Amino acid sequence: MNGFWPKERLKLTFTPYDLILKHTFTLANSSRTVTPVMLVKIQFNGFEGFGEASMPPYLGETQKSAARFLGSLNLGQFTDPFRMDEILEYTDKTAPGNSAAKASVDIALHDLTGKILQQPWYKTWGFTPENTPDTSFTIGIDNEETVMQKVREASPYKILKVKLGGPNDRKMIETIRSVTDKPLCADVNQGWNNKKEALEMIYWLRERGVVFVEQPLPKERKDDHAWLTENSPLPIIADEAVCRLSDIEEAKGTYSGINIKLMKCTGLREAHKMIVTAHANQMKVMIGCMTETSCAVSAAAQLSPRSEWADLDGNLLITNDPFNGVKIVNGKIILNEEPGTGVHFISDFQI
Amino acid sequence: MNGFWPKERLKLTFTPYDLILKHTFTLANSSRTVTPVMLVKIQFNGFEGFGEASMPPYLGETQKSAARFLGSLNLGQFTDPFRMDEILEYTDKTAPGNSAAKASVDIALHDLTGKILQQPWYKTWGFTPENTPDTSFTIGIDNEETVMQKVREASPYKILKVKLGGPNDRKMIETIRSVTDKPLCADVNQGWNNKKEALEMIYWLRERGVVFVEQPLPKERKDDHAWLTENSPLPIIADEAVCRLSDIEEAKGTYSGINIKLMKCTGLREAHKMIVTAHANQMKVMIGCMTETSCAVSAAAQLSPRSEWADLDGNLLITNDPFNGVKIVNGKIILNEEPGTGVHFISDFQI
Repeated sequence: MNGFWPKERLKLTFTPYDLILKHTFTLANSSRTVTPVMLVKIQFNGFEGFGEASMPPYLGETQKSAARFLGSLNLGQFTDPFRMDEILEYTDKTAPGNSAAKASVDIALHDLTGKILQQPWYKTWGFTPENTPDTSFTIGIDNEETVMQKVREASPYKILKVKLGGPNDRKMIETIRSVTDKPLCADVNQGWNNKKEALEMIYWLRERGVVFVEQPLPKERKDDHAWLTENSPLPIIADEAVCRLSDIEEAKGTYSGINIKLMKCTGLREAHKMIVTAHANQMKVMIGCMTETSCAVSAAAQLSPRSEWADLDGNLLITNDPFNGVKIVNGKIILNEEPGTGVHFISDFQI
Repeated sequence: MNGFWPKERLKLTFTPYDLILKHTFTLANSSRTVTPVMLVKIQFNGFEGFGEASMPPYLGETQKSAARFLGSLNLGQFTDPFRMDEILEYTDKTAPGNSAAKASVDIALHDLTGKILQQPWYKTWGFTPENTPDTSFTIGIDNEETVMQKVREASPYKILKVKLGGPNDRKMIETIRSVTDKPLCADVNQGWNNKKEALEMIYWLRERGVVFVEQPLPKERKDDHAWLTENSPLPIIADEAVCRLSDIEEAKGTYSGINIKLMKCTGLREAHKMIVTAHANQMKVMIGCMTETSCAVSAAAQLSPRSEWADLDGNLLITNDPFNGVKIVNGKIILNEEPGTGVHFISDFQI
């Protein structure tokens, strides 16, 4: 800008935060009442960008590991937040893993640059905001009464995601069907084991209005998933099997589509490339999330106009969201005109 | 913006222009002294974006066909230039073909939106501007004396592109080698016929410092190109065989890389997706051009930091460039800080 003053440098700060869940969240192999996250801020030239790492315990990252990773980064070496290739390649190469912590940097950087551009990212990316899909709303594994209550609470949502892979999958579906006839998607989280039984179950689910099945078998079983995809009457979507861009090549022919989550793929920049690559390879895209605040969910929502399906309910499952961002109205994602990722920090405490 | 005034609408204007070539340009099957182009302007809210369609006669588009296509577009239906998915899908679906005319709209739209964002597109895309490659400089098929003169004129360039596919390929290479030992790339433009002779020639070329070979055989001969790619000691690059994003899937395994040109692929938006997809499929990328003004060349140059090779010499081959844009310094593409595609219109006449 000028030769007399030192160049402004990126400044990264972060603080741990615990998301309190409205309901105990039960998956095939775990349950919890709190999700630990790390909230991140990048400052530059009077602008602030917010990011978030969400770390459900079963994925391996913790507030401690995220603090260690983020604390090891020297973003002060960068004097231009638009050099995202350079900054995010540096971040990615600093240590293996840490995908949620890496995503928090990417999200904050997008929020920051979007605010400098004075445009929301969906707009800079050239997307059509009305093309956002309906989001599914997740019904965790639970007792009959709680499931029925959750389904009733989900009345604004037009499609429900059912967590399967427990011993009572058929009962779970029948319970939901006693309350609603909305379309369902089934997320098995690798919970089934036998491919022929899985196929039989998929036929049974189709009869009951399930529209696709996510990660039915353990992710390592590529051939079995390919067999299922070839024989299944419903699309088979990869979740655990596809984390990053480099996983898509192998998923082609094995799955009909992929679930892209910022916390798996290190953020918006790689997620955007994954959408382009998946579509070029004739695969469909779901944009998903973990339990997250409106910060990470609103970031992911920027990509939703180019996604066939969305599962962006993470912020709806918590009681202490410190951000105000993208909203769900009648089950559909409604993008706002706010710059960056479309969020405001509304909490009292400091990041 | 406000409810009282009618919304501003996109306004498209265009005018034909003839590029005068410094040298008669000879390919395997044609030669010419002029390249017809169409210059395009899109206006919105006091901003102007410039675009260009370059139409070498052998590709089938003409100033007449471009005028017909552009005249048939109703961009006045759009009140937001950032809705590029919507605007460019409309443009693409208006008629088949017309890829250069479509590119002129895409380039003008990027210049316009980049000016509104007050940033060059390479920056908004997050690229590292110093990563631009050296551009090759094209030496057309000609008599020995003229070839030697052209090579001497090409002294600022660090890599030369040689047009082969005529009866005197070896003579051409030997003539160039009598003047310089710079690395060469060979562009055959489908000019060879026999795959075994092609392979033999490629070995011969490698001995003489050629680094890759572009479109050696007719584009329809997929199996022969796949055989060449498997057996060749040099990368085999697709040009005529890969025009648009949808062609990449078939090119995988057939070629080592692709030459992306805005005039083939309908513009920057699709070219950007092609780079992402090619890299995800382990293919290399050259960003190329036709004979063009600095308008289309500077637009393509925005993508060059993510391209392994560049052949962006189109504006260097003409005497009447009406634009001032991205420069080549010591053979390397130097991006500027100007917003949009980095060009200024410096001519007296009106688009």
